[in-house]
Formats: sequence, C-alpha cells, structure tokens
Amino acid sequence: VKPWNNVAIVGVGLIGGSVGLALRQRGLAEAVTGIGRRAESLRVAKRVGAVTRTTTDLAGGVAEADLVVVCTPVADIAGHVREAAASCNGAVITDAGSTKAYIVAELDGALPPTARFVGSHPLAGSERSGPAHARADLFVDRVVVVTPTGRTTADDLQTVTQFWKSLGAKIIEMTPTAHDRALAATSHLPHLVAFALAASVPPRDLPLAASGLRDTTRIAGSDPELWAQILVSNQFEVLKALDRFEQSTAALRQALEAGDKKRLVKLLTQAKRKRDALGS
Amino acid sequence: VKPWNNVAIVGVGLIGGSVGLALRQRGLAEAVTGIGRRAESLRVAKRVGAVTRTTTDLAGGVAEADLVVVCTPVADIAGHVREAAASCNGAVITDAGSTKAYIVAELDGALPPTARFVGSHPLAGSERSGPAHARADLFVDRVVVVTPTGRTTADDLQTVTQFWKSLGAKIIEMTPTAHDRALAATSHLPHLVAFALAASVPPRDLPLAASGLRDTTRIAGSDPELWAQILVSNQFEVLKALDRFEQSTAALRQALEAGDKKRLVKLLTQAKRKRDALGS
Repeated sequence: VKPWNNVAIVGVGLIGGSVGLALRQRGLAEAVTGIGRRAESLRVAKRVGAVTRTTTDLAGGVAEADLVVVCTPVADIAGHVREAAASCNGAVITDAGSTKAYIVAELDGALPPTARFVGSHPLAGSERSGPAHARADLFVDRVVVVTPTGRTTADDLQTVTQFWKSLGAKIIEMTPTAHDRALAATSHLPHLVAFALAASVPPRDLPLAASGLRDTTRIAGSDPELWAQILVSNQFEVLKALDRFEQSTAALRQALEAGDKKRLVKLLTQAKRKRDALGS
Repeated sequence: VKPWNNVAIVGVGLIGGSVGLALRQRGLAEAVTGIGRRAESLRVAKRVGAVTRTTTDLAGGVAEADLVVVCTPVADIAGHVREAAASCNGAVITDAGSTKAYIVAELDGALPPTARFVGSHPLAGSERSGPAHARADLFVDRVVVVTPTGRTTADDLQTVTQFWKSLGAKIIEMTPTAHDRALAATSHLPHLVAFALAASVPPRDLPLAASGLRDTTRIAGSDPELWAQILVSNQFEVLKALDRFEQSTAALRQALEAGDKKRLVKLLTQAKRKRDALGS
C-alpha cells in the first residue's frame, strides 16, 4: 500500500510538475491530481507523467486528497491554501513558496482552526519554468526548508517532513522569519544582483561575454513576474541584504579608486574563502 | 613540416599550459619551451604534456623561438615582453593578458624598433588555475581578442591571428582601449560583483545556498592576486562599469522600496532580455 492515496498539486509548473513526477516514479501515491488554471500546462503535466488526472476546479480537486501541495507563484499561495483548507477533508497542506513570513501573515486568522497547513520551501528552483522542464530527481539531495509556526502540530510537521524526505530531500527546520532572512541573502539578493548586472552590460559588448558573465547572470533568465513577487513579498529582508552587498561593493570601490592593490587582494581573499565554502 | 619550429610559452599556468597542450595535440609545433619561475609548475606542465622542455631562464628560453606567448599575470606581462624582445631572434611575441591598454602603455617607447609584439586576450579563463587544469580544447570556439596598435605590421597581426585560429579560436580585432572598455563590462565588473556578493553572505546562511548563489559567485573562486592586478590595471573602465551597475541596482532598490511590483517586473524583464541574448 502506497503512503499517499491522493496527492493534489495546485500549480503544475517546474516545481509542481517535479513533485508529481517524483511521487509517481517512486510509487508513493495512488493518484496525483494536477490542479491549474491553464489547460495547456495541465495537458503537458499529464503528458510528461507528472499527474494522473487534472482539473481547473481547486475545490473539487482537493476534496479527496490526503495531501495538498500548493506550488503556485508566491502572491497566489495564501489564497490557494485558504481555498484548499475550506474544501479538503482534513488533508495536510503544504506549499513550495520562496518566501514564508508573508504567507503566514496572510493566512493568520484566515484559516479554520482545523486547517493543517505547514509551510515548505524546496531550494531547487531553476531559471527554467513550466512542467516541460519538470524532473523526478529535482529534490534529490536538495535542501527543503520546513517552517512550522506556533500553531503547527508535531504530527503535521512530521508528515510534511516525511513527504519531502520521501522525494530525496534533506530537511532544515526554521521559523518563517528566519527562513526569509537567510534566503534574502542566499537567493533573493543574488537574483536581484544578477538582474542588475545583466541590465548594466551595454548591448554592443554582449558578443564579448565569456563564461564568467554567463554564470554570474544565469538566474537573470528567471521569470520576471515570479521574481518581482518574491522580492516584494520579502521586501524588508531583501533591502537589508542589499545594504550589506552595497557595503561590500563600496569597500571594493574604495580600494580600487585608491589603486590599493594590497587592500583589494585582502578583500577578494575574504570573499573567495566564503565562495570556496559553497563548493562547486 | 609544422607551422612552428619552436614556441616559447612564458608562464605555464592554466592558459599557458593549455596553449602548449593545444599546440602539441594539434601537431603545430616541433618544440614547445615552457618558461617559468617555479620549478614545480614547470614539472607539472611537462608531465601533462604541455611542453617539450622547460627552463627558468627567459632569455635563453626565447633565443631560438619563432613565437613567444607571454601568459604571466597582468602585472608581469610588459616586463616579460620587454625581456623576450631583447633576447629573441626576430620572434613574433603575443600575450594572453586580461587588460591591454595598461600593457601597451608600459611598453610604449620601451621596445626596440624591431620588436614584433601584438597583444591578445583569449576569453577562456576559469576560476581554476595552474597547469594541472590545462586543456587542449580550452580555446576551441572561444573568442580571442587581438589588439593591434599603430605600430603593428599587417604581417605580424596576420601571424598572431592565424596562431589563435589554429588552436580553434574565433578572432575579434579591437584597439587596446576598446577592448578594456568592453571587458570591464563583460568580465571585470562581473568578477568584482561576484566577489562582493560572496563577501556579503553571512556565514551562518551558507548552508542555505542553492544553485543560484553558486552560479552567481562561481568566479569569486578565482585567484585574488590575479584579479586585484586586473582590476587595478583597468581601474578607470572598471569604475565606469561599476557606476552603470550601481545605477541598475539603485533603480531596482527604488522600485522595491516603493513596493512597486509593476516597475520591478519592467526592470527585470529588460534585464532578462539581455541575459537571454547571451545563451546558456
């Protein structure tokens, strides 16, 4: 008997599609229901084998689910969690949003007392999007941050943790605000910087781009609408991370303006040490 | 008969070692002389097959060369070109430095009138260094910028162009100052930004790094001494590129502070368009 009878996935893009593919290839769910607004995405999700049935009706789609995974853009998640909580039959609900405090705040007082929502964030995005890029191994050895609040029961936390582990992920548990503070530094700021760097290159110089510029700006190929939502929903922490980045840039600028090579070497060495700690 | 009888490579690191490997694997040179200060690098270069003989004596090493390729760090290039010009026997001399105007300025009036120097810059670096990482295919389908000046003869320009083409590279011809202006935007600024970004991440957040931060900061794993030299030797153009980047960052900051999602989407979309033009 499979761990899940019916998993409903709201939003079958890269993340939702990959959740479905992983569940099916690992034989973890009897049925996977893909729920979405766009018929074309649902068709692709079904064709690649990410879901066993599809519907555009969220309420109907979650009615028989024992687990609901909301994989829609950040600005839509709270609304979809509310809808799912109102229509499901005691299912555990989680999400895959890149920011967490905003969603918790939006849901505060808006969920029935019986709702079983636990937030999640798989650190497994890509500059690509859509179910056609979904991969069954997207979460293998990747970190998923699970963000319980004071209202989360130990049982539901355990269920959501076990769910992501069963897809191959490693779990880190954090509060929603600690998550947002850390991710501002490790994901949201790097995206903002990559977009700013791509924007600053004069078009006539693009033919002289080498792998350094390609690597550094790769995530500037990400979806602008999704990333505008993420940045705005974590506005405060992203601005703090941007302050820190601008201090680092100012120190390098100062050393460069002074032609102070010794100071530059020192600053670059400190930066390299942190980079080397990340691995390739 | 091979195109080159004896190619002398001054500096057998990643670039110099790869030039040697490519020459030998393509059968383009009878002999390749590796010239360096560190016996250990010379030993590795010989062991991996990048050179046929080695010496720590630059004057002796270039005496019989018909081509000299100076692959030392930017701050050493002008000195090594001068030494090579004084000791060689009519050889064409080129280099592989990441900045060009500084080298031309250092050489101005310092070369004998018979010297045959033409600057080059293969856009084929890596965050790795040393001859152990050398690859025979490092220059295949990569751009090499060749930077003739008013003193360069058509023959010598043709010789250097043909040399890089024979290693598989595509050639772009530019003046030294046009090269430095463009590379400030496409290489030097991205390195500075990657170092600043790596420096700004709080150490406790490093475990939450995903592929986005890894890509964006990959080149911050580069050699700090080499990059301090490159930045200082192109100080003026790098600072201008940094100005442009800070304008891009300021526009994003302003939109984010205002919570202006529409404006953010517009700015991110413009940036993504430029990034998409770079390819993967």
